[in-house]
Amino acid sequence: MSEPSELRRDPAGGPWVIIAPRRAERPDEFAAREAAAGGLPMESCPFCPGHEGATPPETAAVREAGSVPDGPGWSVRVVPNKYPAVGTVAEPPPAAFDGGLFEVRPGAGAHEVVIETPDHNLDFSRLTSAVAGAVVRTWRDRIRALERDPGCAYVQLFKNHGRNAGASLSHPHSQIVALPVVPVRIAEEIEAAVLFRAAHGVCLHCRILEEETADGRRVILDEGGFLATAPFASRFPYEIRLQPRRHADRFVDLDDEETAALADRLRAVLGRLRRSLDDPPFNLLLHQSPPSGRGGRPDEEIAPAYHWHIEILPVLSRVAGFEWGTGIHINTVAPETAAARLRREEA
Amino acid sequence: MSEPSELRRDPAGGPWVIIAPRRAERPDEFAAREAAAGGLPMESCPFCPGHEGATPPETAAVREAGSVPDGPGWSVRVVPNKYPAVGTVAEPPPAAFDGGLFEVRPGAGAHEVVIETPDHNLDFSRLTSAVAGAVVRTWRDRIRALERDPGCAYVQLFKNHGRNAGASLSHPHSQIVALPVVPVRIAEEIEAAVLFRAAHGVCLHCRILEEETADGRRVILDEGGFLATAPFASRFPYEIRLQPRRHADRFVDLDDEETAALADRLRAVLGRLRRSLDDPPFNLLLHQSPPSGRGGRPDEEIAPAYHWHIEILPVLSRVAGFEWGTGIHINTVAPETAAARLRREEA
Repeated sequence: MSEPSELRRDPAGGPWVIIAPRRAERPDEFAAREAAAGGLPMESCPFCPGHEGATPPETAAVREAGSVPDGPGWSVRVVPNKYPAVGTVAEPPPAAFDGGLFEVRPGAGAHEVVIETPDHNLDFSRLTSAVAGAVVRTWRDRIRALERDPGCAYVQLFKNHGRNAGASLSHPHSQIVALPVVPVRIAEEIEAAVLFRAAHGVCLHCRILEEETADGRRVILDEGGFLATAPFASRFPYEIRLQPRRHADRFVDLDDEETAALADRLRAVLGRLRRSLDDPPFNLLLHQSPPSGRGGRPDEEIAPAYHWHIEILPVLSRVAGFEWGTGIHINTVAPETAAARLRREEA
Repeated sequence: MSEPSELRRDPAGGPWVIIAPRRAERPDEFAAREAAAGGLPMESCPFCPGHEGATPPETAAVREAGSVPDGPGWSVRVVPNKYPAVGTVAEPPPAAFDGGLFEVRPGAGAHEVVIETPDHNLDFSRLTSAVAGAVVRTWRDRIRALERDPGCAYVQLFKNHGRNAGASLSHPHSQIVALPVVPVRIAEEIEAAVLFRAAHGVCLHCRILEEETADGRRVILDEGGFLATAPFASRFPYEIRLQPRRHADRFVDLDDEETAALADRLRAVLGRLRRSLDDPPFNLLLHQSPPSGRGGRPDEEIAPAYHWHIEILPVLSRVAGFEWGTGIHINTVAPETAAARLRREEA
């Protein structure tokens, strides 16, 4: 076991960074496959049925009646990440080595993997409605569980699909990280939403949904209580935002019927993306309000102002010096063009 | 000519984005080389001597006496980018289509390419001291010239080295973009610096330089008035920050002696990176104060508080869903480890 991870804040005005030397040790299926030049033998996938011993013991699973934990018979399986970005911290927090400039916190939290199907070659868009629904319910239930830790300030759900999107294994999976700080992107979105509501008396996102629906040019899918759009200021070509029409700031408050509806919309949207652009790599991420009391403002201010959503970011271009220098992305595909193409693709 | 570019601001609380359909048309030497499977014939490089007609007419150059613009005989050559992210806008600014939510600005500005050497196969670290000095002077002079445009709020200099760093041509070059808005990253850094100075009476960066020197663990090079460090909260493995010891908020205020000293330090640092890590792809970028009066605060507040610097960001890992979702980077190489390795590599 090498050094534990820690959070450091850039004293020059940047955000938190996680220094996680342990993650450098994780195997890369794609590199291994290239080295073997003949495809990774399926037997070596730690997420395939029969290999349950290759992962840490499961924390949750959707299982056939009578099957036992860490054996086969599951349709969705949750395990701790073997190479976590953050994790349980045994040692006392290291002291910041300076009176203030160099701020350090222990990398406390949790990092879990949701194995979305036993089938190595499926992808989310081709899961059955029932299995996709079970995945989304599992996301909700695990986030709820991790939020109960009083040290947890935010739980980030994400999915990396394809090597260029940062996946190191191709077996369909998503990841959940419980963090001791509220991420800067969430804090900024909440701030914008709270200010908008203070000025206009309504939820910023409800207003955007309304205007996007009326305008229509950036709408990709409008079905079953969810709207998928190519966001007005898309940072990436074919970026997609999926959002419930009904105002709600917390994804974890969805009931089983709503998670099932969301799963079907996600399958539809990801299917359009796959067929329109020949299965591109993508990142998927969930944004919701932090757990009660940890949003930096009273819950009563955040709940009516913020609106949970999912972002899907295809990896079709490279982020380069200009973007890192400025924070301004250059996107060569207008969202109106992207939406038109994704709309044409039948569900 | 397809649609001109435009700036759009994310109504949900994100930064400006540049929508630039024209840039999708730029050729990709690396893809062409893969397609040809035998290496791109050198004759087709638009940045090589003898191909001056393949670029728009030059805006500046360092030339042999007697040579003529857009002919051979140059050692550094500046041309407009043929596929600009922003550019001169002929048409009137498009009106925002909504009273406020969806903010649009014309993509006004300039986008230039600095061809750093006639030699297709050199890289910055192996330029002669004289040529490297001429490149850095050219950066300064072109930034000065572009800042004179009253519509310019910030000029971003950057360099993408290697395909995975976003370069589409391998001939050594850097890029300069004049923008109608101050980038969010610059605004945030200035805010942090101004607040620090208000609280402590000194420049935040001068203080960091002092503490990093005293600590020593993250120092890579300390020579000729410049300090190169692996930043305390490095977002990327082997990230490097190069900064002058003498307080100055504006790179463009350097005199010729100082640009020469900077060029030599840059050669040294990039040489260490190349030799330590087998010529990795990297992004390089310059941060300085915006031109007078455009920093969002009085110049008298910014000048003593901010401190220009160069960031070098090797591309050794992939940015994935977690980073895009949170704004928090996971870095698997501690900066202390990175600095030790880059120090060992002799200059």
